[in-house]
Amino acid sequence: MRLPEGFQDVVQALSVLPGVGERTASRFAFYLLDRPDKARMIAEAAGSLRERVGTCIQCFNLTDKGRNEDICGICTDPGRASPELCVVENVPHLLAMESAGVFQGRYHVLHGALSPIKGIGPDELNLPSLVERVGTQEIREVIVATDVDVEGEATAAYIREILEAQEVSVTRIATGVPMGSDIEYLDGTTLARALMGRKAQF
Amino acid sequence: MRLPEGFQDVVQALSVLPGVGERTASRFAFYLLDRPDKARMIAEAAGSLRERVGTCIQCFNLTDKGRNEDICGICTDPGRASPELCVVENVPHLLAMESAGVFQGRYHVLHGALSPIKGIGPDELNLPSLVERVGTQEIREVIVATDVDVEGEATAAYIREILEAQEVSVTRIATGVPMGSDIEYLDGTTLARALMGRKAQF
Repeated sequence: MRLPEGFQDVVQALSVLPGVGERTASRFAFYLLDRPDKARMIAEAAGSLRERVGTCIQCFNLTDKGRNEDICGICTDPGRASPELCVVENVPHLLAMESAGVFQGRYHVLHGALSPIKGIGPDELNLPSLVERVGTQEIREVIVATDVDVEGEATAAYIREILEAQEVSVTRIATGVPMGSDIEYLDGTTLARALMGRKAQF
Repeated sequence: MRLPEGFQDVVQALSVLPGVGERTASRFAFYLLDRPDKARMIAEAAGSLRERVGTCIQCFNLTDKGRNEDICGICTDPGRASPELCVVENVPHLLAMESAGVFQGRYHVLHGALSPIKGIGPDELNLPSLVERVGTQEIREVIVATDVDVEGEATAAYIREILEAQEVSVTRIATGVPMGSDIEYLDGTTLARALMGRKAQF
């Protein structure tokens, strides 16, 4: 049976979402067909997302464009002024740091990581602005909290290089055994890093 | 960190979808934030769903309202004219029958099943129209293909009752061991039904 075009369009549109296949999207579409108010909510929210959410001109975190914010809440909070700057790959990573409550300073969101395979070079990331911030603001330490994978490591190494000329210490978050994990089941690379990073004081 | 309202609205709107929690919805929202064209596609498709998809005035299957259809492709197909009418709970069930290609006649979609717990009584289902179809069209057999669960069984029993006065045989799809399954792991109720439904000819 040929499904109505309007139905197929919803299935196609929703199946672009990460982890959503055609089957799940079709389930979503049937659900929305019976709930026009929910469909309208989604339509309005998705349609206005770009007009209502902006990017912080200093750190590239999200801003509330609907309230005419061009700088984010963390950057405007005087309590967050700190000589330490934390570099993260994206906003979800920033949110993870925030919900852990482990960092009280400000961030710099790269919006990606270096990846020759994905065609992401230094020009695609917020790196010139990082160099500029370090050069003009009172920053003594740049903590590179990119992922500990090939791309994140390459990005960290690149940041260390481009900040070499400046009077700032560039540090990297520690790699090792995550809390609560069983050493028996850890991969060799993590174990090797944990050994290399061993400490005398503990 | 307080997330922008426009972002939270997308998270909230998408988290109503079946199986989507706040965490998944937030992942969807970040995805859409980077892809405004996809967000627009979803907005347009979801926003026009109700105007573009209608309900068949005969069998309550979906119709293409955008093409001004008020009767579905199956009901208009002369090749599907048949003395057998298959009653299903909803359109996904109809689609399952269609993709199995096991039924060549027409359907009647109830859009639900009797459920005192969910407050779904006979008035909420397309039952009067079923009685009317049986009374006015050349239907000799009504095959009740509702789910084999409490609600589907109650609905089947109810349909048998309301069609009792009419000259039509009301049949129910068979319950038993599904193909390819291991009897060792089957639930007792299914096994009991399979035993009860045993056949001499096989």
